[in-house]
Amino acid sequence: MHLKNLLPNYINGKWCPSSATESLQVVNPATVDVLAQVPLSPQEDVDTAVEAAAVAFSDWRRIPPPTRVQYLFKLKVLLDENLDELARTITLECGKTLKESKAELRRAIENVEVACGIPMLMQGYNLEDVARGIDEIMIRQPVGVTAIISPFNFPGMIPFWFLPYAIACGNTCIVKPSEKVPLTMQKVFELLEATGLPKGVVNLVNGAKTVVDAILEHPKIRAISFVGSSPVAQYVYSKGAAHGKRVQCQGGAKNPLIVLPDADMEMTTRIAADSAFGCAGQRCLAASVAVTVGEARHSFTDAIASAAQTRVVGYGLDEGVEMGPVISRDSQTRIEGLIQQGADEGAKVLVDGRKVKISGYEQGNFIRPTILENVNPDSSLSQTEIFGPVLSLMHLDTIEDAIALVNGGQWGNMACLFTSSGAAARQFRYEAEAGNIGINIGVAAPMAFFPFSGWKNSFYGDLHGQGRQAVEFFTQTKVVVERWFKDWSRQF
Amino acid sequence: MHLKNLLPNYINGKWCPSSATESLQVVNPATVDVLAQVPLSPQEDVDTAVEAAAVAFSDWRRIPPPTRVQYLFKLKVLLDENLDELARTITLECGKTLKESKAELRRAIENVEVACGIPMLMQGYNLEDVARGIDEIMIRQPVGVTAIISPFNFPGMIPFWFLPYAIACGNTCIVKPSEKVPLTMQKVFELLEATGLPKGVVNLVNGAKTVVDAILEHPKIRAISFVGSSPVAQYVYSKGAAHGKRVQCQGGAKNPLIVLPDADMEMTTRIAADSAFGCAGQRCLAASVAVTVGEARHSFTDAIASAAQTRVVGYGLDEGVEMGPVISRDSQTRIEGLIQQGADEGAKVLVDGRKVKISGYEQGNFIRPTILENVNPDSSLSQTEIFGPVLSLMHLDTIEDAIALVNGGQWGNMACLFTSSGAAARQFRYEAEAGNIGINIGVAAPMAFFPFSGWKNSFYGDLHGQGRQAVEFFTQTKVVVERWFKDWSRQF
Amino acid sequence: MHLKNLLPNYINGKWCPSSATESLQVVNPATVDVLAQVPLSPQEDVDTAVEAAAVAFSDWRRIPPPTRVQYLFKLKVLLDENLDELARTITLECGKTLKESKAELRRAIENVEVACGIPMLMQGYNLEDVARGIDEIMIRQPVGVTAIISPFNFPGMIPFWFLPYAIACGNTCIVKPSEKVPLTMQKVFELLEATGLPKGVVNLVNGAKTVVDAILEHPKIRAISFVGSSPVAQYVYSKGAAHGKRVQCQGGAKNPLIVLPDADMEMTTRIAADSAFGCAGQRCLAASVAVTVGEARHSFTDAIASAAQTRVVGYGLDEGVEMGPVISRDSQTRIEGLIQQGADEGAKVLVDGRKVKISGYEQGNFIRPTILENVNPDSSLSQTEIFGPVLSLMHLDTIEDAIALVNGGQWGNMACLFTSSGAAARQFRYEAEAGNIGINIGVAAPMAFFPFSGWKNSFYGDLHGQGRQAVEFFTQTKVVVERWFKDWSRQF
Amino acid sequence: MHLKNLLPNYINGKWCPSSATESLQVVNPATVDVLAQVPLSPQEDVDTAVEAAAVAFSDWRRIPPPTRVQYLFKLKVLLDENLDELARTITLECGKTLKESKAELRRAIENVEVACGIPMLMQGYNLEDVARGIDEIMIRQPVGVTAIISPFNFPGMIPFWFLPYAIACGNTCIVKPSEKVPLTMQKVFELLEATGLPKGVVNLVNGAKTVVDAILEHPKIRAISFVGSSPVAQYVYSKGAAHGKRVQCQGGAKNPLIVLPDADMEMTTRIAADSAFGCAGQRCLAASVAVTVGEARHSFTDAIASAAQTRVVGYGLDEGVEMGPVISRDSQTRIEGLIQQGADEGAKVLVDGRKVKISGYEQGNFIRPTILENVNPDSSLSQTEIFGPVLSLMHLDTIEDAIALVNGGQWGNMACLFTSSGAAARQFRYEAEAGNIGINIGVAAPMAFFPFSGWKNSFYGDLHGQGRQAVEFFTQTKVVVERWFKDWSRQF
Repeated sequence: MHLKNLLPNYINGKWCPSSATESLQVVNPATVDVLAQVPLSPQEDVDTAVEAAAVAFSDWRRIPPPTRVQYLFKLKVLLDENLDELARTITLECGKTLKESKAELRRAIENVEVACGIPMLMQGYNLEDVARGIDEIMIRQPVGVTAIISPFNFPGMIPFWFLPYAIACGNTCIVKPSEKVPLTMQKVFELLEATGLPKGVVNLVNGAKTVVDAILEHPKIRAISFVGSSPVAQYVYSKGAAHGKRVQCQGGAKNPLIVLPDADMEMTTRIAADSAFGCAGQRCLAASVAVTVGEARHSFTDAIASAAQTRVVGYGLDEGVEMGPVISRDSQTRIEGLIQQGADEGAKVLVDGRKVKISGYEQGNFIRPTILENVNPDSSLSQTEIFGPVLSLMHLDTIEDAIALVNGGQWGNMACLFTSSGAAARQFRYEAEAGNIGINIGVAAPMAFFPFSGWKNSFYGDLHGQGRQAVEFFTQTKVVVERWFKDWSRQF
Repeated sequence: MHLKNLLPNYINGKWCPSSATESLQVVNPATVDVLAQVPLSPQEDVDTAVEAAAVAFSDWRRIPPPTRVQYLFKLKVLLDENLDELARTITLECGKTLKESKAELRRAIENVEVACGIPMLMQGYNLEDVARGIDEIMIRQPVGVTAIISPFNFPGMIPFWFLPYAIACGNTCIVKPSEKVPLTMQKVFELLEATGLPKGVVNLVNGAKTVVDAILEHPKIRAISFVGSSPVAQYVYSKGAAHGKRVQCQGGAKNPLIVLPDADMEMTTRIAADSAFGCAGQRCLAASVAVTVGEARHSFTDAIASAAQTRVVGYGLDEGVEMGPVISRDSQTRIEGLIQQGADEGAKVLVDGRKVKISGYEQGNFIRPTILENVNPDSSLSQTEIFGPVLSLMHLDTIEDAIALVNGGQWGNMACLFTSSGAAARQFRYEAEAGNIGINIGVAAPMAFFPFSGWKNSFYGDLHGQGRQAVEFFTQTKVVVERWFKDWSRQF
Repeated sequence: MHLKNLLPNYINGKWCPSSATESLQVVNPATVDVLAQVPLSPQEDVDTAVEAAAVAFSDWRRIPPPTRVQYLFKLKVLLDENLDELARTITLECGKTLKESKAELRRAIENVEVACGIPMLMQGYNLEDVARGIDEIMIRQPVGVTAIISPFNFPGMIPFWFLPYAIACGNTCIVKPSEKVPLTMQKVFELLEATGLPKGVVNLVNGAKTVVDAILEHPKIRAISFVGSSPVAQYVYSKGAAHGKRVQCQGGAKNPLIVLPDADMEMTTRIAADSAFGCAGQRCLAASVAVTVGEARHSFTDAIASAAQTRVVGYGLDEGVEMGPVISRDSQTRIEGLIQQGADEGAKVLVDGRKVKISGYEQGNFIRPTILENVNPDSSLSQTEIFGPVLSLMHLDTIEDAIALVNGGQWGNMACLFTSSGAAARQFRYEAEAGNIGINIGVAAPMAFFPFSGWKNSFYGDLHGQGRQAVEFFTQTKVVVERWFKDWSRQF
Repeated sequence: MHLKNLLPNYINGKWCPSSATESLQVVNPATVDVLAQVPLSPQEDVDTAVEAAAVAFSDWRRIPPPTRVQYLFKLKVLLDENLDELARTITLECGKTLKESKAELRRAIENVEVACGIPMLMQGYNLEDVARGIDEIMIRQPVGVTAIISPFNFPGMIPFWFLPYAIACGNTCIVKPSEKVPLTMQKVFELLEATGLPKGVVNLVNGAKTVVDAILEHPKIRAISFVGSSPVAQYVYSKGAAHGKRVQCQGGAKNPLIVLPDADMEMTTRIAADSAFGCAGQRCLAASVAVTVGEARHSFTDAIASAAQTRVVGYGLDEGVEMGPVISRDSQTRIEGLIQQGADEGAKVLVDGRKVKISGYEQGNFIRPTILENVNPDSSLSQTEIFGPVLSLMHLDTIEDAIALVNGGQWGNMACLFTSSGAAARQFRYEAEAGNIGINIGVAAPMAFFPFSGWKNSFYGDLHGQGRQAVEFFTQTKVVVERWFKDWSRQF
């Protein structure tokens, strides 16, 4: 017997109830109101979705690319028009401020815009006469059924690193949103439906690990795009590969931000605070370690502490709020525990954001901006992704020391440098082992027309999301070697 | 205690004895002469090589690309100059004819030529003003230490699908040749050494599964390129991924060749015979199934049978020989068993190449060209890669039936069509689920400036060998987001 | 004193009266109703427009590309929404059928769609370490003020081969439409205005040769895109170059269509008729010569004659009409004279479309489809672009003869082959000296994501309109060679 | 009657005497020894060469690209092997130092290396299903006969910006070297001959304006590449265009070099001196104006004056010489006159290099490094290209003033900035109107894999020499639109 009042799945062009026998609450992290019940769909629901997607693929790939992108042009308009409502939904279920939700959505739309260029981006290449009378042509064709597994922190953006490219290239797609924030994709799929996309091209299956495993094991799914924590990313990469699929998995991070003495300190502080505490630190491009070099120590320490202390924390829907809650009570508890662990391991809690009560939202999962100074680089905390509004602050003597610290970590999602020196910027760019580099930038998120380039344990695979690499991931190359023998008997 | 008289490894710019305690004989498959003893190197040898490669990487990546390619320009000259000797070595250990060995080497050289273009191919892209005053630039940087594991059938070519690109991009490299045919790489590494490449950039470790596993597990190896049978390809892909690496694995095949009634039958037969029996059928692009459509049945069957019967089989070094032995006695036995299995499962042995004795080479591992007619598509043989000079012959009524047969198989390395019809060629190109398509071509091997595009169980991963995809595989993208604050105090 | 009731120009974000002292009538070619008066603007109007464009350029180029394309996304929506009205306007002033007008507009919109991809298409490339510590980066920057001069036959499409790319790349633009069909651009500019584009980015100056010369001579105009007849194209190319500008000029054509005996004759005839008589033959990709090879002679001749005779000619706004009038009485007279000249030079008038009266539109500039058989290849007519619904029909023996005929002409806009043979198609594609090749296609107009590739006297310049080449034409490359010296005194 | 003892032309694979009736002396500018007599070939010689090239084209374009580049691979080896002798020849006829001659040749070889990548670089692009069942493919084909007209200052390098690409793309080529320095191309053509290139593919015609005009007017020449002074560049562009050809013309320059106070002054001075006085200032990328900003004035002025005074001037073949003579007595007289004009117009002759006698080479055309301080920006000298070892020195207050000065000039070949500031570099890169930008670089010559990007009056055309743009210039795009009708009667 199916549970009632659960969020529906969207399969084969229809909203349909999950066959789930279990469900979870979707909770507003600021108010702890229950927003909805999300089904934990069983494998059968994935099977149904894959079957629909497989059937749809055969026709969809035959729609010419310039026609396929018409759906994306429509989607862009619909997303623009519904930006406010979508942003509100993100804030409701995810907690971030409305401004942050809108910024997130703009990044989603940007990916739709880029995927509108598929008639260019999907082109193959060719050469006449690779040998006398023999031509060679490479054609890109879609891979078939694809799946996207996305995390809780950007419910409106992350599926768009993949989905627009997947379908524009002629694939069909299953999306599994995070079970913590399923409402945004509900609304996005309403818009997808409104574009008139043929049934089965996009499908939505709500759930948790059972859905993930069903996706990883399904023989008809050819490509998997995942974003989440590094351990799960590694699990998905490993298991997906064991089932013969192409897989791209984006994992976690511990992003360092280096401040040289010649940086514009006022701008640097503002940017660093936004990076560390924006989205309550729950983003894979949050700065979680700030490293001052030499004389930058004093000016930056005071300024960032002040920025942390004065940041306005509250309900994301309220005006003037600069930071919302973290996603859940569990998360809050875990983060507060890690702060304590840092203190126990010798760090100084320069700014302590624990045990905060936000008036009117006393039950909310709030932590205020926190700064731990002098975290021991050998401590276990220094190798732990906190995923909350907690900035570790360290002081080093030279840029070489700072780069060594950057490169000593296991992750490589982002590294940022603040300086006015062209030489320092070049040195950092050349040496820092991270795929997204910011120079006087705090959240070095590549635009949609560039790949989102995590390195090391922040990424498993080779082709990243967004832009050209997404197109490559969602197509397979077919090389045709062609020769013709003239039929002399035909007399022309 | 090290074994004596073993082939050496080449590590850190020196030829050095393996620490192996076991070895295997390298046997000329035509004469069964023992050519050498190849060590089964232990994990320590891999560790030593990786360490050398890791140390070398730091300097090598700093050599400018236009300088790095100077080594490849030299290598091309050396390979051209030593073509005959290298070809002889391939024939000696691998059995194919001298002409085939030379053709193989020309494909190797072609890849060196293409990799000489790295200063172009490795370029990143960039856009000014992604937002006001913010620029974005994507740079390609090498991944680090890479490894190549290659099979016995193209000892001189397959490592070159990867190695020239790997090092041109600034990576360092470990090559593990097949333990059955290690001599060719010995000679190739002599040439690599003669180019003056810095020590540690290229390394050679001889051995078998122990070496493979050591490579798959070594934390400092970042990228693995493999070519071999599909089960091993899947093993390597799965295990490499489980260790967090980027992996590209090319597997086996069972390549169909479709003959339409409007084909040029004389050329088609000649090309089909070369594809099926060239290299004794031991290549991943050998045609192993020929399918006639409609009226093509009669003319093609007679002609191909005749071509099979008259093919000159013998020692690859002898003049006029058109086909050599298979790689080993084990292989010969296995292939003859599969022929029998085919007959037992109902196929007609139209031409039987078993139990052949080649005068002067009575001990050689010879099988003559064999044709099995009407192999049952549901039989287990029809899903088995024979990897010998055995062609299955089937007859169907329509091109649609033929395409369905192509797409029904588990592999997707190659599919070829013989026709004079532009419409049929387009239909086939559009529909056939294989990554390398031949139109009136029997061995649709993409040139070095195109990706070698296996599909389905013929390839695990997303980026293929050769050309641009090799460059992408051997580089990681770094996106730099950059903004500058004008320092007003500096007064200029 | 300015004339009254003239069509206005659009300069610097405002509709403003021309300072013209002369004007022409805009006439509906089917009804000969006067639709409007178009001013013959003097040089001062061009100067004013260029000045506005030059001022606007400075700000417009600083708008980030992802923001600039938002105007194009809006434009696409507006064009989609106003398709019917725009199509009606084209038919009114240009005479073609409503269906043809709509098809034309879809091509315009397609170019807007492609130009929406500018953040991708405008990217430059770069390489780290071209020498030790020296990086090189190529950036594309806009060229400045550009101008578009377009002909009467596609008033809604041709400016879009250039304009969307020009402005998306950050240039500003002056459009001079044909004085015969100025109304369509009036409406298009209303939509451009509705997108909210900053003033001065796009400007419209109505007029004739005076405007053209003012554009060609103005020192601030950096790039000129022209489409028209070959003599004028050559004039514009030569004069534009003499004034130091980059110029791309598309000229006329006399496009051959070759019919082999193995072609699908029913489809071929239908397609050939559409190509020759569609748009009343007034297009640079109209087939104006049909050449049968061998046995194709008989079947094709009868069929095409029948198609010519039965084509429904009438007012483009009326239902069921398949062909409208030619643009003007002058044009009609000139075409009828050329038909007579053909007859005088020995051709057989197989179908004679002269002296037709269309009921209800007796004053209209109508000519019915006309076929001249056996036009002497040496006659002057055979080297004259008729630009009307007149097809020359010739008969040759071999495809080689046909290709020789194709290549013997002065033009190279298009050449088409009808066949079922892959070999013939390849031979034609390889040998035919024309930039747009159709295989079983009658109007080989490249999609917006390909260059419109005229050759020989059909094009002067090197970079064509549409797609990547348009982007290249509208940008100039800036190569930055960069090195930094570390400032050791700064102590970090 | 032909003159005797003249340098031969190389036409159709043979060294053949010019039909010239006039000739000029080739003079060593340091010793004034007469090295050879160069014929002033008449139009007939050009006609003969073009005819040979036109005939050769038909076969050459049919040689597969991977085969064509084999000649370039050979050429690279030959150029490497003959570097010393070629360098000596350059120094003999052109005067620059041996080190400069070698550096020049390395740039030539680099272009050969890049052109070896033609199988990649010449590829077209393609898309399946631009509409249902319709495919589109763009192929690059060569343009035919091309011509290169090169100047005296880089006799060994400049033809290589074009020639390797021209022939690699399948074109044939006529080279007209400067009549002042014809010897280098004599030797280069010996090497071209030694590669075994088919006859007629490359041709050498010695001479002066008559040859240029014959090239510009010849109907069979399709593309012209020119490098020289701006007035002649404009003449060639205009006349070539008037004859319907594609033309790329690189002109002169007056390159500014901006020194900010935060530059590394020691390195800046050294680099600035090399740029201004290297090759005796006779290069289109020589810095001819140095502008100090603010405090940089004092330190830079003293240092550059000292560098100018101490530069070792002498015979380029002598050890330790840092600068050779200018090309001719005429040139010397002209330059000395311009220095005087500068002084007359109010500039201070800070370092005066006139009336120098070099011991042992008293007849040589020597001028020592010269610095004119405070050249009036409104004086005619400030808008004159001196093309000698003369640096104008100016002092401004802000970087904005400096950029305004850069952008106020008529040329746009190069602009360089010396600074340690990332912000200043970005501002300069964004704003400076020159196509080759140096940041802490004095001669911003793009590598062969980038376009040599002159702007404004330094370049006429749109596609530049070197790299991808050279490939585009030497190919024409052919777009094939293809559809196939299935022949149902054929029953397969």
